[in-house]
Amino acid sequence: MTTDLNTVPFVSVENMMRLTHETGIEEALAEIAGYIEDDFRRWPLFDKTPRVASHSEVGVIELMPTSDGTEYGFKYVNGHPKNTKEGLQTVTAFGLLADVDTGYPVLLTEMTVLTALRTAATSAVATKYLARRDAKVMAMIGNGSQSEFQALALHKICGIEEVRLFDTDPNATRKCAENLKGTGLRVVSCATGQEAIEGADIITTCTADKQNATILTDNMVGAGVHINAIGGDCPGKTELHRDILMRSDIFVEYPEQTRIEGEIQQLAQDHPVTELWQVITGEITGRRDDRQITLFDGVGFAIEDFSALRWVRDKLRTSNRFDMLDMIADPDDPRDLFGMLLREKQRMAAA
Amino acid sequence: MTTDLNTVPFVSVENMMRLTHETGIEEALAEIAGYIEDDFRRWPLFDKTPRVASHSEVGVIELMPTSDGTEYGFKYVNGHPKNTKEGLQTVTAFGLLADVDTGYPVLLTEMTVLTALRTAATSAVATKYLARRDAKVMAMIGNGSQSEFQALALHKICGIEEVRLFDTDPNATRKCAENLKGTGLRVVSCATGQEAIEGADIITTCTADKQNATILTDNMVGAGVHINAIGGDCPGKTELHRDILMRSDIFVEYPEQTRIEGEIQQLAQDHPVTELWQVITGEITGRRDDRQITLFDGVGFAIEDFSALRWVRDKLRTSNRFDMLDMIADPDDPRDLFGMLLREKQRMAAA
Repeated sequence: MTTDLNTVPFVSVENMMRLTHETGIEEALAEIAGYIEDDFRRWPLFDKTPRVASHSEVGVIELMPTSDGTEYGFKYVNGHPKNTKEGLQTVTAFGLLADVDTGYPVLLTEMTVLTALRTAATSAVATKYLARRDAKVMAMIGNGSQSEFQALALHKICGIEEVRLFDTDPNATRKCAENLKGTGLRVVSCATGQEAIEGADIITTCTADKQNATILTDNMVGAGVHINAIGGDCPGKTELHRDILMRSDIFVEYPEQTRIEGEIQQLAQDHPVTELWQVITGEITGRRDDRQITLFDGVGFAIEDFSALRWVRDKLRTSNRFDMLDMIADPDDPRDLFGMLLREKQRMAAA
Repeated sequence: MTTDLNTVPFVSVENMMRLTHETGIEEALAEIAGYIEDDFRRWPLFDKTPRVASHSEVGVIELMPTSDGTEYGFKYVNGHPKNTKEGLQTVTAFGLLADVDTGYPVLLTEMTVLTALRTAATSAVATKYLARRDAKVMAMIGNGSQSEFQALALHKICGIEEVRLFDTDPNATRKCAENLKGTGLRVVSCATGQEAIEGADIITTCTADKQNATILTDNMVGAGVHINAIGGDCPGKTELHRDILMRSDIFVEYPEQTRIEGEIQQLAQDHPVTELWQVITGEITGRRDDRQITLFDGVGFAIEDFSALRWVRDKLRTSNRFDMLDMIADPDDPRDLFGMLLREKQRMAAA
């Protein structure tokens, strides 16, 4: 991959899908999880800020920037639960990586597919550090866009062998089960949430309603379980009953953001939580015993997108799955932007 | 212009230049100024937030979002004064307009050229409302990338007939004078700042050093002058001596941002300033008499970019100066992102 001064590599949705398949979906998930782990290990280095959200009655548009001092990344992402009914994606996203030293973009990419990959990879990283070592069975509550990615990531990275599916919409469960055929996972479709979590070592909730729902109630959750609560990711949107939170040790990405957006918005502002990165560096013990309930209250943080952007950028070193976009004005003399504009007029006249 | 669900119109640098010439540079400046005036008139409607800046030792990368409740826009922009020495632009930018109702992007565009146009258009709007009606002569201090745009915007919109140029680098002045040939402006190149502002009704400063400089000292500025201070736009970067500020009536875009980034960072946090939009709506009188010194402390605000993005979007209704980017994942079933990914694998195998 070569980058001219005035052009920026762009990865379209089609190219992102092809890049993923060239790598293999599970291998891509594992590679991205590796980038996320690497970045979580150097967490204190990053410029961190809660995402910049613009809320409307029907959804939210967010910008999620971060920087490690050498590279700068941000993601544009929307969340519109009602979109599904209109045949649109709930979440679409794109992102950018730039060089801190010059401010010039070095990568523009779709991030709808990429966010699906990185969200699942993040759950897998959390699960790897927090679930019981002998965990083999996972319940997947909510069988929408993110469900297959979650199942495959935990299969590949955490050794999950069985996934138990439940969704209030049986069609979603059918779709998910069909998509997971041939992946090596044992897939069990369940008629109730209760049935899905019976015997599960890991429970992942990923539902999309923008409201305080109660996907899991307290009596459903047994000792020793690890929970990934992925779907509660904005103010007023939670999935778990408060009593489960009170019984769990809670792990988060960035407390300042999670207290606003995550399950813990139901708790007091000073309720103790542990930052996941400190478990990964070994500063804090994650799981202490086999009876403990661990809860990863995942809302998605800018550093995970940064990791995913770095993964794409590195893949493009050996892949041609990109186009070059004429996105940066590059006059011969940088102070002569106007002259560049005038010369374009001459070219138009000559053509 | 038609927009598929999965594609987004993209305006490259080349297409932005061609769109500008199709319209005519001065006409484009006037049209954009019109959009800015319209948006300033409905200022209270907008979601406003100071830009989200990531500073490094050599520059800054910023995201500037805003929304009027129907459309959402943001700009990515860097500011790296040292870039010029490396043959790079000090400022490069791109931006996006999205539909608030769905969160889907409707326009992606280069904004380096567009920012140059909107910055000049904004100065012209401020000058139109604040300068003396009989103003004909303008001093342009700093003859870099922005200078010709400023001169042309004030020529077209405010009736300026003569521009007096000064830059510490005579080559920049030579470049600017050359570029302004044939525009109808009388161009006078000056050897000192003092010479440039002699007899000027309007003084525009636009220099790029990231430091507290003193481009204008107090004794240089006479009664009745209007000043556009454009170059001081980040913490630690100012152009005017504090004493000039003390003698001026100061007009700003968004006080919360300008107090951090503008000339008024030199003043007390409660120093009185007037918001430009209130002058435009007529709520507050701008210029009261011919002796008053008015100062527009312009730092550039997200709403001006929003106006410029709206202008581009509207131009594309009758122009084909765009490409369609495959930027949004659009599965047939919005919950079946994974299925879309699987089908791409089948297509790759079939090809």
